[in-house]
Amino acid sequence: MSTVAVGVIGASGYAGGELVRLVDGHPNLHLQVIAGHSSAGNPLASVHPHLSGGDRVLASQDEALAAEVDLMFLALPHGASARPAMTLLDRAVKVADLGADFRLADPAVYEDAYGSPHPFPDQLGTWAYGLPELDRTRIASADRVAVPGCYPTSAVLALTPLVAAGLIDSAAIVVDSMSGVSGAGRGVKPHLTYGAIDESVKAYAVGSHRHRPEMEQAISAGSGTRTIVSFTPHLVPMQRGLLSTCSAPAADGASADDLEAALHKAYDDEPFVDVVPDPPQTRWVVGSNRCVMSVHLDVHSNRAIVSSAIDNLLKGAAGQAVQCANLMLGLDETAGLPMAGWMP
Amino acid sequence: MSTVAVGVIGASGYAGGELVRLVDGHPNLHLQVIAGHSSAGNPLASVHPHLSGGDRVLASQDEALAAEVDLMFLALPHGASARPAMTLLDRAVKVADLGADFRLADPAVYEDAYGSPHPFPDQLGTWAYGLPELDRTRIASADRVAVPGCYPTSAVLALTPLVAAGLIDSAAIVVDSMSGVSGAGRGVKPHLTYGAIDESVKAYAVGSHRHRPEMEQAISAGSGTRTIVSFTPHLVPMQRGLLSTCSAPAADGASADDLEAALHKAYDDEPFVDVVPDPPQTRWVVGSNRCVMSVHLDVHSNRAIVSSAIDNLLKGAAGQAVQCANLMLGLDETAGLPMAGWMP
Amino acid sequence: MSTVAVGVIGASGYAGGELVRLVDGHPNLHLQVIAGHSSAGNPLASVHPHLSGGDRVLASQDEALAAEVDLMFLALPHGASARPAMTLLDRAVKVADLGADFRLADPAVYEDAYGSPHPFPDQLGTWAYGLPELDRTRIASADRVAVPGCYPTSAVLALTPLVAAGLIDSAAIVVDSMSGVSGAGRGVKPHLTYGAIDESVKAYAVGSHRHRPEMEQAISAGSGTRTIVSFTPHLVPMQRGLLSTCSAPAADGASADDLEAALHKAYDDEPFVDVVPDPPQTRWVVGSNRCVMSVHLDVHSNRAIVSSAIDNLLKGAAGQAVQCANLMLGLDETAGLPMAGWMP
Amino acid sequence: MSTVAVGVIGASGYAGGELVRLVDGHPNLHLQVIAGHSSAGNPLASVHPHLSGGDRVLASQDEALAAEVDLMFLALPHGASARPAMTLLDRAVKVADLGADFRLADPAVYEDAYGSPHPFPDQLGTWAYGLPELDRTRIASADRVAVPGCYPTSAVLALTPLVAAGLIDSAAIVVDSMSGVSGAGRGVKPHLTYGAIDESVKAYAVGSHRHRPEMEQAISAGSGTRTIVSFTPHLVPMQRGLLSTCSAPAADGASADDLEAALHKAYDDEPFVDVVPDPPQTRWVVGSNRCVMSVHLDVHSNRAIVSSAIDNLLKGAAGQAVQCANLMLGLDETAGLPMAGWMP
Repeated sequence: MSTVAVGVIGASGYAGGELVRLVDGHPNLHLQVIAGHSSAGNPLASVHPHLSGGDRVLASQDEALAAEVDLMFLALPHGASARPAMTLLDRAVKVADLGADFRLADPAVYEDAYGSPHPFPDQLGTWAYGLPELDRTRIASADRVAVPGCYPTSAVLALTPLVAAGLIDSAAIVVDSMSGVSGAGRGVKPHLTYGAIDESVKAYAVGSHRHRPEMEQAISAGSGTRTIVSFTPHLVPMQRGLLSTCSAPAADGASADDLEAALHKAYDDEPFVDVVPDPPQTRWVVGSNRCVMSVHLDVHSNRAIVSSAIDNLLKGAAGQAVQCANLMLGLDETAGLPMAGWMP
Repeated sequence: MSTVAVGVIGASGYAGGELVRLVDGHPNLHLQVIAGHSSAGNPLASVHPHLSGGDRVLASQDEALAAEVDLMFLALPHGASARPAMTLLDRAVKVADLGADFRLADPAVYEDAYGSPHPFPDQLGTWAYGLPELDRTRIASADRVAVPGCYPTSAVLALTPLVAAGLIDSAAIVVDSMSGVSGAGRGVKPHLTYGAIDESVKAYAVGSHRHRPEMEQAISAGSGTRTIVSFTPHLVPMQRGLLSTCSAPAADGASADDLEAALHKAYDDEPFVDVVPDPPQTRWVVGSNRCVMSVHLDVHSNRAIVSSAIDNLLKGAAGQAVQCANLMLGLDETAGLPMAGWMP
Repeated sequence: MSTVAVGVIGASGYAGGELVRLVDGHPNLHLQVIAGHSSAGNPLASVHPHLSGGDRVLASQDEALAAEVDLMFLALPHGASARPAMTLLDRAVKVADLGADFRLADPAVYEDAYGSPHPFPDQLGTWAYGLPELDRTRIASADRVAVPGCYPTSAVLALTPLVAAGLIDSAAIVVDSMSGVSGAGRGVKPHLTYGAIDESVKAYAVGSHRHRPEMEQAISAGSGTRTIVSFTPHLVPMQRGLLSTCSAPAADGASADDLEAALHKAYDDEPFVDVVPDPPQTRWVVGSNRCVMSVHLDVHSNRAIVSSAIDNLLKGAAGQAVQCANLMLGLDETAGLPMAGWMP
Repeated sequence: MSTVAVGVIGASGYAGGELVRLVDGHPNLHLQVIAGHSSAGNPLASVHPHLSGGDRVLASQDEALAAEVDLMFLALPHGASARPAMTLLDRAVKVADLGADFRLADPAVYEDAYGSPHPFPDQLGTWAYGLPELDRTRIASADRVAVPGCYPTSAVLALTPLVAAGLIDSAAIVVDSMSGVSGAGRGVKPHLTYGAIDESVKAYAVGSHRHRPEMEQAISAGSGTRTIVSFTPHLVPMQRGLLSTCSAPAADGASADDLEAALHKAYDDEPFVDVVPDPPQTRWVVGSNRCVMSVHLDVHSNRAIVSSAIDNLLKGAAGQAVQCANLMLGLDETAGLPMAGWMP
């Protein structure tokens, strides 16, 4: 089988580095161009000394936008994807955007979450939301896919089947998530120094995180039921891994078996989602494209609780982007994606 | 001022080591006897090489029970405090028990949580619950105090003023807590090895943790309102520190200002509790006896959220025990207790 | 190309888990049998929840010894490989032993290092030492290969070319190494708990570690010059990665360029060894089978210093074992071995 | 006893924060003024949320230089202490400088190490070197003390008694040190982010670190023997703690007992230095002002090895500064200094 040419714009970040690593190891993709911003003109090894082929030189974004590729991965800060995406689509290059620019369908929700109007409001709603377990058909026929955020991936997979089955109260969901530090990106900021992070945990963006409307939109779309989420993210001293503890009042008569059955029905045929009896550790999935979850009924409070773990940089970013690209390009959905994680 | 003789039984664990350190530095207490179990007969340095006076020899429990002290700290596994406590009380020695044996007032609740009937059911309810911010008068007049668990300390302090003020729905509370590993004790177990913990986070005891009934009892007692909590603890890769994210539906009309005012009213005169505007990091309190919390109103979901941080070994165990002992012995409540933490 | 059947005995440890992961992803190997000891009869997921194919059942060692395989990997505690290795060789099964049982060529040196006579002293010296960069020809023709220890791999690669070129004093070498905790194995021991390891570093086995004679033997054999090493290992709070700081007095007139040239000459054609200008971080190699090193001349003390980094479980154990197996089976030496690491 | 007024300039860094904490808890010192640079005008809590008295406002350096104090602690980047120190001395304020500006006695050595001529070369050699265990008499009579660097403190204490006793070859010393990240300061730099540090170890400044000439100067001065050190520092993923593995060829006939006896003789009466039989962990000393060391003779290579552990921010910085200040002010040398560390 011949290979498909793809590129990565935004390669110098953590998700960008993982995209390079995954595409390099992919049996059907060829990495035609790698672009950075401040790192343009420098060898890959200068930003990712752990990768092979470190002497490949990073292109500028403009060079990458002109490259002959079938699909481009964009791994840019939010707000920075919109224009290059339009340029690529005009050239009939498919786009898998890891940023947040095209995830929300409603311009008003976008403006409320991101603080300014969307530059291309007509685009909103025309992009496929890149969570294959919810709607892989749409992704497979799309030329533009908005890859979900890390927190939404973990929570939407955990909750949608339960909401869809009417087993929980979709208006009283609480999602408390814990993320490794790579989820905050590779910026050099006071709150991301080792001194500020190590041996500490904190909540942040309480009640105001931008992934909340994304969760609500995706669960509502996937279940057909309007959903309200109270979301609190936490930063945990580890490089990778994301755990969401998702809970909601159980519907009258819903049993633990009902909850577990709904998740098994949704995911038993999914290659990357496992439903297990005991709460997962994030390390079970770090390094893989898997999501592992367990569901519990707290009979005392009659609350359903799902514990859902992903690698924020793989199933929560670069891995999911490759999964979407596989669908968009007509490849095996699992091609080039690790099923096994790294331990210890 | 002359000093008061005290002892520590269970000195070889983490909380026991902190008790020794605090009492050694206390201006009004004298550490008369230090007892261990398997470490009895060995020098203190063999179990706590970081402490000074490492050549002091650990006594057996029996020797400690016969020692001439005014107050004994018990830092033993749950189930192991009951009998030595009875012996000490018979000798008119005051007891501050860091274990769970005498925290619950209802024998049925105890049996449900701990899986076997209480050996001294008549004692339940006669012990003061050692959270001074809730009821320091009872502690000051008690000869037997059950020092709260680490998770309850963080959550009860966060929620009780809000329940008492009628600002949240006490029947729909969710507490998602994250603890450093020292909270699991010093046991040598597969799930506590570095290989199992580092770079990973997990939920555990979902819906079944023994600190849930303790939280409900204390919030109910402190607020006069029956309370139901759904509690999920998580293990985070750090030595110390505990963060509880406590949420509940806000009462109709309750504003963010109302929530903050209720906490300020409760704690502005408290030496060890600080209400701050932004979510605290656990490192702000590690090393100190402080509890630092922030409260937020998620207007989208109309949910009140309190982020509450303590050092699980100090305000969550040994520090709080010394605070109680200070009250029981008529000393300054803050004597010997660190107000500043350690950073980085 | 058809695949070759191999097996892993000792699969429940960390190196064993990495062997399973590497063989599962290897294009030319088929994992015929996976054996554990106390885990025999249980599914793979019970010991390695991060691996795929978790429902594969672990065989007993006896079952594995009777399996139809061309090559067996042994990942057992030292002392435990000798007998199963003999059984396998009698059945004409090739053996790649990750343990220490057959690394040393001299029975007296073995007895001095390991404290008891070798059960099969005649075997010593008949096994190939599995460091392909030193002598891949011998490995390629061997049916029995002793895969090197993690510390020796890092230090022998760093020092042998310099000793061979007469650039350093081989009688005054100092190797100070720092290892991640997985190097100590998966045992459940007090000194390996999270509480004992996190936020601490220590030296251990000062002057007495068993890898010292192995280093000396390999450098002496590889360089033709008798070598004496003073070796101090350190335990560092991280899961994986190993760094050796190797130094020795520089020979008269040896320049920094001479040192660098000697390493480049030795390794520029090697797929898994990179010589770089600046001291490497262990994270550059964790997840890969690479060794990355830099060499420096401290002109003040006239001492040559090599900083050499590997992943202790890959180039220091399972990866190197697969590299040897590739040679023993006539496969491409790099087949199935990761060239890129994991970051962050 | 009345208290002595002191101040801290450079309070916003890690060592500055520890100075504030130590002085706040000191029975004989009163913290008259706390100064920062970019943080001047802001409350202490804005830079050190873990400290008590967080509403104290940071002064500017100019304000602090005019304050009525008996002694000023300077915790500034290297190069920044010289001018304020001169100003203070002109005002007859004693100075304990935690920076490197006045540690080296020889202007040529200073210029070689720091890359530019010293602004006050006549001062060099007139400052006492603030390692009380080497020469507390000079410190006690000095009005200007240069507090040693963290690496030198650990190595000089380890090696000086052995050199002085003629037990090791002072011309062939190797010091390989491992430091927690706080040793690199609180700067916001790419190589100090959590992403760059966690789960990794590296050597840096190989053969060129500025603490090497300081070590040589102090050991030479303390022993009367010219000393040459080859020094390689390493960065280890932990907040605090510093371990130096110091080795040198043993003199002919020197036994392990001789080595141990020399250290015991030097330190058995010292309050802050402990000689123990087994290699110390850094966590035994973190939080205390102690240095704990063990000495070993590697009979195979005939090399003496000392493993020496300190808290880089206490005995390696702020604690030692307070120890010096106690001497300079005629107070008990141990006043206000913690003898017990923090564990876990």
